[in-house]
Amino acid sequence: MSRFWSPVVHTLTPYVPGEQPRERVIKLNTNENPYPPAPGVGKVLREYSTNRLRLYPDPESRALREALAKYYNVAVKQVFVGNGSDEVLAMAFQAFFCQDEPLMMPAITYSFYPVYCQLYEIKYQTVPLKENWQVPLDAFDPRCGGIVFANPNAPTGHGHQRDAIDAFLKRVDQCVVLIDEAYVDFGGESVIPLTTQYPNLLVTGTFSKSRSLAGLRLGFAIGSRELIEGLERVKNSFNSYPIDSLASAAGIAALEDQLHFESCRAKVITTRERIRASLEILGFEVMPSQTNFLLARHPGYDAAFLFTGLRERGVLVRYFNTESLYDFLRISIGTDAEMESFIEALESILH
Amino acid sequence: MSRFWSPVVHTLTPYVPGEQPRERVIKLNTNENPYPPAPGVGKVLREYSTNRLRLYPDPESRALREALAKYYNVAVKQVFVGNGSDEVLAMAFQAFFCQDEPLMMPAITYSFYPVYCQLYEIKYQTVPLKENWQVPLDAFDPRCGGIVFANPNAPTGHGHQRDAIDAFLKRVDQCVVLIDEAYVDFGGESVIPLTTQYPNLLVTGTFSKSRSLAGLRLGFAIGSRELIEGLERVKNSFNSYPIDSLASAAGIAALEDQLHFESCRAKVITTRERIRASLEILGFEVMPSQTNFLLARHPGYDAAFLFTGLRERGVLVRYFNTESLYDFLRISIGTDAEMESFIEALESILH
Repeated sequence: MSRFWSPVVHTLTPYVPGEQPRERVIKLNTNENPYPPAPGVGKVLREYSTNRLRLYPDPESRALREALAKYYNVAVKQVFVGNGSDEVLAMAFQAFFCQDEPLMMPAITYSFYPVYCQLYEIKYQTVPLKENWQVPLDAFDPRCGGIVFANPNAPTGHGHQRDAIDAFLKRVDQCVVLIDEAYVDFGGESVIPLTTQYPNLLVTGTFSKSRSLAGLRLGFAIGSRELIEGLERVKNSFNSYPIDSLASAAGIAALEDQLHFESCRAKVITTRERIRASLEILGFEVMPSQTNFLLARHPGYDAAFLFTGLRERGVLVRYFNTESLYDFLRISIGTDAEMESFIEALESILH
Repeated sequence: MSRFWSPVVHTLTPYVPGEQPRERVIKLNTNENPYPPAPGVGKVLREYSTNRLRLYPDPESRALREALAKYYNVAVKQVFVGNGSDEVLAMAFQAFFCQDEPLMMPAITYSFYPVYCQLYEIKYQTVPLKENWQVPLDAFDPRCGGIVFANPNAPTGHGHQRDAIDAFLKRVDQCVVLIDEAYVDFGGESVIPLTTQYPNLLVTGTFSKSRSLAGLRLGFAIGSRELIEGLERVKNSFNSYPIDSLASAAGIAALEDQLHFESCRAKVITTRERIRASLEILGFEVMPSQTNFLLARHPGYDAAFLFTGLRERGVLVRYFNTESLYDFLRISIGTDAEMESFIEALESILH
């Protein structure tokens, strides 16, 4: 604490990301893609004229937004880009959720959302998940100050289909609904097509998971022109150029390689379902998942014990030290070889 | 305007950066470096394993902060890094300047500062420059909510020496003093050595000007541990990973090449003084400059007229449509060949 800080800074409990260890481990803790980005990304890096780096990037990131607009079949002015979807989310919270009525979110969802609320002094209410751990769409009050959830949700892995979200949006049209689709490419159904229909719907996405570009920090939002304009006003009052030139070029190359994208996500999905079966054989309860991770618990073993045992064996998974998730491990899907080592490590702990 | 926006969003007048034109022009409008970054940057790009990009960067950007700490001879925990110094400045405004008393700044300085004040609803007061266009250090009230100015100042080009800032900080120790050293490498004197002495001093810097890396978005702040911790709390409540892995590696390579750095800045300074003489021969009044730009006006010609004439001749400079600067052009220093074309274009307008 310091007398020099703004008052709100004293109240912040920052988000804690999964660790990025320096030693060599099997890293199944931050939902990274185990496969490299599209080969075109390497070509961009090798052929990039560094002399261009002396110039500022396009402040409007027009080329990247055009590539996203084409990919998702929306207008360019429906697309906003940021330095990772965390930045896009932060700006969306500031742009839309500083309202008299509280923001609503599920009690279990991406744990960065309450941190943004602290930063921007946004009141919020949580609604418990359903008994089957799904996001309870019917529990959100349409007169609230906004609604945010991840779909598929994290860290549970469950996603609602587009029809269900469509019906939900017919009921909730008075506040901004922010749907975070960070994991949608691993088996969920995107609601981006609904953005042309509902002016209050904002959908965020990221290049960090299905595009294997976590290291380059690229995220985006798609929504109505009035929502995108709100985001642009905040962005242009914060940082004229959040997207660097090289990241933009690499992102475009990643978007252009549909074959690589399909191949990687298919491998992740196949591995995920195989590992689900292996975990079930070992006695785990495993949540259904439309993502690149599995949330699992074992009736006979404490999650902290399993986490520590795996870590000792060189396997890093995520363990949440919170009341509602204390008995769960979240396991990112790695390569087949990595997952085999993970299962072997688990077996040696359990037996 | 939209019913979906947070109230503050309706009040924002975003910063407008100098344009990044698509056509080929001689670009002297955004104070970019005319020389390419250090050759080591190209080596980083060509040799970077894209497989590393699938992983998140180090959230603490330890390697880049270590390189900066070594370069500036400060402790690593005195160093904060961000996605361009604009992001660092934004976070500093939020972290330190949301106070009961107003922030103070010069009436003429980097025009993004009042925009941050709007975004974070910070009250501010401006103090007029001295008659010689210098920042009036004696006019700042030590009981205010904070003080910010660029040193050397933009767009005037004048800088105070370290002794003057030292004396100023002896008087002003109750509030955070943020000194933006974006241009200091072109002839100013950095006050980074004073950060170990004054816990209320924060100095920001950028790789965009003297390191020729505007396209990669790297900025930093150096200050006392308590100020850096304030910035980290905001950053970790906003975006866990603002610095991408590749930008970090490129930034380190740029910092390591002192010879290239010295050579480029010497060339810029030599060209700047030659062009000052040429402009004076053409009848311009030219401000003294410790930066990579010149602020100049001609008693016989309107700045808007000159700006338009130059633009028609393929030369882009910056022209500020504000009361205090309406008759000035700000001219970034390019290569000798570019500046020769600039002077030729001016001559054809003036004669």
